[in-house]
Amino acid sequence: MTTYVQAFSQGNAKMKELLGGKGANLAEMTRIGLPVPPGFTITTQACLYYAAHGVHPQGLDEQVHAALSALETQTGKQLGHKALPLLVSVRSGAAVSMPGMMDTVLNLGLNDDTVQAHAAATQNPRFAWDCYRRLIQMFSNVVLQLPMHEFEKALNRRKAACGAQTDPQIPTDVMQQLVNDYKQLVLELSGKPFPQDPRAQLDEAVRAVFASWNNPRAVVYRRLHKISDSLGTAVNIQAMAFGNMGDDCATGVAFTRDPNSGEKMFYGEYLLNAQGEDVVAGIRTPRPIIELKEELPQAYDQLFRTCELLEAHYGDMQDIEFTIERGHLYMLQCRVGKRTAQAAIRIAVDLVAEGKIDQTQALLRVEPSQIETLLHRRIDPKAKVDVVATGLPASPGAACGAVCFDPDEAEKRHERGEKVLLIRHETTPDDIHGMVASEGVLTTRGGMTCHAAIVARGMGKPCIVGCSEIVIDEENQLLRAGDRIVRAGDIVSIDGGTGRLIMGQVPLIEAQLSKEVQTLLQWADAAKVLGVRANADTPADAQRARDFGAQGIGLCRTEHMFGQGGHHPERMAVVQQMILAETLEDRLVALAALQPMQELDFRGILLAMAPYPVTIRLLDPPLHEFLPGVLELSTDVARAEALGQPHEEKLRLLRKVKALAETNPMLGFRGVRLGVIYPEIYEMQVRAIFAAGSELFAQGIDIHPEIMIPLVGHVRELKLMRDMIARIHEEMQPKFSYLVGTMIEVPRAALTAADIAGEAEFFSFGTNDLTQTTYGYSRDDAESRFLSQYVADKVLPENPFVTLDRDGVGKLVRMATVDGRYARPGLKVGICGEHGGDPASIAFCHEIGLSYVSCSPFRVPIARLAAAQAALAAQGQKATASAV
Amino acid sequence: MTTYVQAFSQGNAKMKELLGGKGANLAEMTRIGLPVPPGFTITTQACLYYAAHGVHPQGLDEQVHAALSALETQTGKQLGHKALPLLVSVRSGAAVSMPGMMDTVLNLGLNDDTVQAHAAATQNPRFAWDCYRRLIQMFSNVVLQLPMHEFEKALNRRKAACGAQTDPQIPTDVMQQLVNDYKQLVLELSGKPFPQDPRAQLDEAVRAVFASWNNPRAVVYRRLHKISDSLGTAVNIQAMAFGNMGDDCATGVAFTRDPNSGEKMFYGEYLLNAQGEDVVAGIRTPRPIIELKEELPQAYDQLFRTCELLEAHYGDMQDIEFTIERGHLYMLQCRVGKRTAQAAIRIAVDLVAEGKIDQTQALLRVEPSQIETLLHRRIDPKAKVDVVATGLPASPGAACGAVCFDPDEAEKRHERGEKVLLIRHETTPDDIHGMVASEGVLTTRGGMTCHAAIVARGMGKPCIVGCSEIVIDEENQLLRAGDRIVRAGDIVSIDGGTGRLIMGQVPLIEAQLSKEVQTLLQWADAAKVLGVRANADTPADAQRARDFGAQGIGLCRTEHMFGQGGHHPERMAVVQQMILAETLEDRLVALAALQPMQELDFRGILLAMAPYPVTIRLLDPPLHEFLPGVLELSTDVARAEALGQPHEEKLRLLRKVKALAETNPMLGFRGVRLGVIYPEIYEMQVRAIFAAGSELFAQGIDIHPEIMIPLVGHVRELKLMRDMIARIHEEMQPKFSYLVGTMIEVPRAALTAADIAGEAEFFSFGTNDLTQTTYGYSRDDAESRFLSQYVADKVLPENPFVTLDRDGVGKLVRMATVDGRYARPGLKVGICGEHGGDPASIAFCHEIGLSYVSCSPFRVPIARLAAAQAALAAQGQKATASAV
Repeated sequence: MTTYVQAFSQGNAKMKELLGGKGANLAEMTRIGLPVPPGFTITTQACLYYAAHGVHPQGLDEQVHAALSALETQTGKQLGHKALPLLVSVRSGAAVSMPGMMDTVLNLGLNDDTVQAHAAATQNPRFAWDCYRRLIQMFSNVVLQLPMHEFEKALNRRKAACGAQTDPQIPTDVMQQLVNDYKQLVLELSGKPFPQDPRAQLDEAVRAVFASWNNPRAVVYRRLHKISDSLGTAVNIQAMAFGNMGDDCATGVAFTRDPNSGEKMFYGEYLLNAQGEDVVAGIRTPRPIIELKEELPQAYDQLFRTCELLEAHYGDMQDIEFTIERGHLYMLQCRVGKRTAQAAIRIAVDLVAEGKIDQTQALLRVEPSQIETLLHRRIDPKAKVDVVATGLPASPGAACGAVCFDPDEAEKRHERGEKVLLIRHETTPDDIHGMVASEGVLTTRGGMTCHAAIVARGMGKPCIVGCSEIVIDEENQLLRAGDRIVRAGDIVSIDGGTGRLIMGQVPLIEAQLSKEVQTLLQWADAAKVLGVRANADTPADAQRARDFGAQGIGLCRTEHMFGQGGHHPERMAVVQQMILAETLEDRLVALAALQPMQELDFRGILLAMAPYPVTIRLLDPPLHEFLPGVLELSTDVARAEALGQPHEEKLRLLRKVKALAETNPMLGFRGVRLGVIYPEIYEMQVRAIFAAGSELFAQGIDIHPEIMIPLVGHVRELKLMRDMIARIHEEMQPKFSYLVGTMIEVPRAALTAADIAGEAEFFSFGTNDLTQTTYGYSRDDAESRFLSQYVADKVLPENPFVTLDRDGVGKLVRMATVDGRYARPGLKVGICGEHGGDPASIAFCHEIGLSYVSCSPFRVPIARLAAAQAALAAQGQKATASAV
Repeated sequence: MTTYVQAFSQGNAKMKELLGGKGANLAEMTRIGLPVPPGFTITTQACLYYAAHGVHPQGLDEQVHAALSALETQTGKQLGHKALPLLVSVRSGAAVSMPGMMDTVLNLGLNDDTVQAHAAATQNPRFAWDCYRRLIQMFSNVVLQLPMHEFEKALNRRKAACGAQTDPQIPTDVMQQLVNDYKQLVLELSGKPFPQDPRAQLDEAVRAVFASWNNPRAVVYRRLHKISDSLGTAVNIQAMAFGNMGDDCATGVAFTRDPNSGEKMFYGEYLLNAQGEDVVAGIRTPRPIIELKEELPQAYDQLFRTCELLEAHYGDMQDIEFTIERGHLYMLQCRVGKRTAQAAIRIAVDLVAEGKIDQTQALLRVEPSQIETLLHRRIDPKAKVDVVATGLPASPGAACGAVCFDPDEAEKRHERGEKVLLIRHETTPDDIHGMVASEGVLTTRGGMTCHAAIVARGMGKPCIVGCSEIVIDEENQLLRAGDRIVRAGDIVSIDGGTGRLIMGQVPLIEAQLSKEVQTLLQWADAAKVLGVRANADTPADAQRARDFGAQGIGLCRTEHMFGQGGHHPERMAVVQQMILAETLEDRLVALAALQPMQELDFRGILLAMAPYPVTIRLLDPPLHEFLPGVLELSTDVARAEALGQPHEEKLRLLRKVKALAETNPMLGFRGVRLGVIYPEIYEMQVRAIFAAGSELFAQGIDIHPEIMIPLVGHVRELKLMRDMIARIHEEMQPKFSYLVGTMIEVPRAALTAADIAGEAEFFSFGTNDLTQTTYGYSRDDAESRFLSQYVADKVLPENPFVTLDRDGVGKLVRMATVDGRYARPGLKVGICGEHGGDPASIAFCHEIGLSYVSCSPFRVPIARLAAAQAALAAQGQKATASAV
């Protein structure tokens, strides 16, 4: 018989998969003797069985019954007992934290009878009725999924009637009336009375937890965070501890270090005379944990020591939940605390300094994507800013965008390409799509641990919470801050690092890497095997890449030097002249004008990167990309024609543009195909490289150019270019050494890598194009047509343009690497697609033994860390990233 | 020391590679005792050495000297001897026949001294001077490459001055003067005197043969006929036999069977008192070989018997050259004779009937491409035709086109998409490009063995030669036939099977397969292992495919049923309505209207092909292909806008079309991607298949539909479609059995074939798209931009859209087949790209064990033969195709 239920005393922290994170940690705390209210966990296996079959597995009900009996014995109470009723909490808890799921039902076990017993036993009738009121409300919300605003309305009606400002002011009799209101609401809204049988309450709550695994919010959350659907959730049933029995009671959350900065300090919030959800919900504003020291000094001391012990035990910053019942501390949860990227790195580095972990552990603690967060922009400190309001700095970074009060609207505008900032009273899991669509989030309510703060930190988006200076007027679609008004659609800026809401668009600057990051990345460099280069087309980019730690350029695109993408507009005319040339002579004239410009480019970039290698890709895009579009010209001509205006010149240009236009430019006349048909273009570029290189070499600069021929599909193409380069070498006699290699970006090149390696001194996988051709996806079209939906519906496990597709594209990359090195031992092999900056793809590159990855300068630090983690993982170390 | 020279008596027919075809056959004839003038061959190895190094290999000169000495001993004459001069012919001869190369120099050894001795020895001064005149002319042409028209002019001047109508009428003294004219011309045009030293003549001639291997004509010819550049040519040096010593002399060519019809008859032409080149050049019109029986009966008998012996010896129809010198027969060449496709098949089948070869040999004798020739159109026998003139029927088939007198012009017009017929006095290797560009060729001169006839037969183009009724007036760009005038650009028709030139465009009908072809293809079916199916979209196509022997449909494209390509214009409106539907409901309405139409289609095609399988591909092209183009609509709108005309409706359509337009439609939203995003479209098609199939099945028709999902790249796509089909199966409960499989047409599908085979009951390689994606070539663009030049310059060995690229695309096909069958043993695997009808690609499909090939109905017979040849080749039989 499978064991589906385990008492806390039977488990430990390593059993997360079976018991969920919450259950495993409750067991661990129990095991090491911390004060945990007794309870038991229904395993994730039971959930998975239920998800697959729609019924409980055989034996589950009996096991729950037995565990409950044991719990009753241990507590001396009984579920539903009319004198000594056992009350329990029911909480979901998957192996990884999932805020999108059904969370908690407290006070379960109360009914019209037991509430009386509870009142008698605690000698506190108001407390008992408040518990019952809370049970019905939470049960209605998370189990029955009834609309909460009806309950809020009922509560507010009663408060108004009795003149109460806050919940604690509600007298006992009104609380009793409210319970009746709530029961009536349950009957009306669900068509069934609130279950009076505590066992039925428990069964329904367990079923609801099971079902919550596949509720839409949870599914979306898993998709967003790449969490497997096959984990399932556990259910924790635990005797209640009450933080709301009076002013010697409290409940709160705490972190062993500051989760924003990473600073070593005891950090947290609590509320006196409250239950846990009051803190998280952000309804009452909680107080800093340090104040607890004065209010309940003994309990505070116990809490502080317990937290120290937990951090030492787990070797990482802990996020804990506690309740103090009449002066007694109870630990309700502990887990590795979520933290900002900055904090993650600081904590990891500090823990090494404190001797608590080693460098390898530190490297595995930080998610590479967290490094990216640190590279987010911040507001230029020299800028004058017009601060409208200030709230809590919940997630660092700065952002600008149009004010938007509605998550659906935010999503719509985002889809139209607008930048928006979402401003809400508070956020719920239902708002996630709006947060995804926004540049940043601001809420008027809540503390540093409220939903908006946690989710925004997870997403690496700037966030301000608890900005109570602001009043939102949804009806009129505006907000007021004092006498100032900001309307929906107005552009504002937020600074998640300081909590400031600022009018207008402010100048942003890129972040620099902190001392701790530098330290961590130095450790990463020592641990990694892969080289990390950058894709850079200008000396400025090259310099930035070096600043971020790149050791070479893996892709220098010469088309930008030809004026593409708005670079060098003055060169565009010469390039067009070259393209439109009717004869070789005319083309050579234009190319002669371009050559000194190219020399200048190459001199600058080789100098900026010396003594590291620079891979220069010869011209790649189809020539028509440098000309006006067919559609634009055609409509111009049609219009002029209709109006009888002269249009000879345009018509001539249109004919040429049409002659160059292609049905599928991605598969068109570009790359080495240009080099073969118009060898004079590549010849000019090679001459420019040799001339620029020779000049630098003569000055004693240690340069290492690598000439890269793009889009080779057949070895003969490469051979022709090699011969051409050899001929120019013969003629110009450059003294420096250089390599000639190719991009592998069509499947045929990968399939015939052994042949191609005969002519190539290096390979560089252009995995963007290789993904396009291997899948037969046009990146320009696929995402908007079907690919986004494919990823959303899990037709594909990942977007293959983001994370390298190991089974398809990766198979080609592996084959080509093996075959290429078989033909030419020691062949240098790199990757220069966007995958070069994606941690999962970098791990693959390490596994198959590539020489280096190359990515955009901003992703270089990420790549350095990811490369180190890949190397450490390969050494058998297990990644236990801290903030997942 | 390498042997570079071999006497005829030392070689045999199997040494073609070393001795060339001509040399090997001269050796073979010598070996079996036929009357061959003695001589020796310089091997192809010497030529290749010369081509690589520009000088003779060591030892060659000595070996030539020794062989010459032996020849002098054997003949009792000496090269350059003033009393008994040895005269020789020098002929090139590669392993495969190459009309584009330097061919022959006759009478080598004559100079101002030896001509006297030759006159004295033969007691025929006119003959001797004529030989000398010919030597200088041929030497100037093929060795010195001087312009021949200057020599023609000199000849015509002398003839006019002495009143001679024909060459034989030129008296001896005028011939002497002509020799002086010629020597003067050589001096003027080449800057050097005609070489008087016979040994120097020989050296220069040998060098010229060597150099001719790489002359532009030869290079073009090899490219056209896919002949390797690394064969080299041999040089044959042979004692002269004279057909021009008087009326007891003759020279001619003969075939052991009619090379046009294949009929068993002695077939050939000869000229009395002539040298070989007179026959081939087409200057004098030669006489049918049968007349030689009366003129030189003894020699004729010997010739006839020798030919019979040769055909029996070689087991194939022979093409021979002979000379009769004073009644003695000399064999100058024999080779397997070129023949029309019709003749090739008839001869092969007849030889089996005569017991001379077996069926396997017969199958290997016919080039699959020759079958194609037989499928060329002919003139509808019921049509009334206006015959302008009649010439010799040199190559069968009929064609229509615009009259064109110039090969360059023909090429230009062809490139503009026009159909042209090339009409010339005669053709030379310089005209090949014009012949390639033309639908057919007509010459006013020459016999059945002239250049135009041979080349046109090789190309499978209709050809008429010797149409002497016609007078071409190049200056006025017209031709006259009696009192009729046909101008350049007029449309005419030719019938290469009857020799008729016909005014205007005549109705053409497709050929049917002759009895012999049917016989050969039945043998092929027995020998082949591969199945042969057809790509057919309509019942009519399906019927044609069956007539040609297809056993199933490998690709039935449903887009044509959706109105694409001008089929079913009435359906287009419904299809557009379906595409432009804003809601699922609207789309379902349109699909409901389409379903009965699809049912009708499927019923027809399943019925036409029963009991063979029909692979139905669900909708493949991107939806925008069914709508007007963006460019067309944009210019319409711009025009209307400029003129202030209403254009709301167009603008609305334009917006939708723009929304659907794609940058790279080839890699776009098509195939299964449509099926996943709009499942209702594929659902409708599946319902139509089940409905149509059920109706036929109820009537007792044995149907085997195979539902094919296109463009699958990830197994999940296929899984979703399988699930959908299973759901509809559950609902409709069709009683007949069917398969569900996929096209493999993107590299990822091939790379993950093992996964995909888990969901696919068959694979069909769409090698057109697979070639596009594997190479990264857009077929719509590549050929005109760079691919044609790539093939011409041998950057690629073949056009990969014509012949499957074994190293790249083929590697994927092989991998996918192996992996797919590993995952699903016995998986049915076919190919349905255009390669399915290409013999070289079919051979590959056989080698890797595919189940079938599928091609257009017209290529089915070709595929049947190619499949048989592949199977026989695999059995270790060597292909000795007869007509190469």
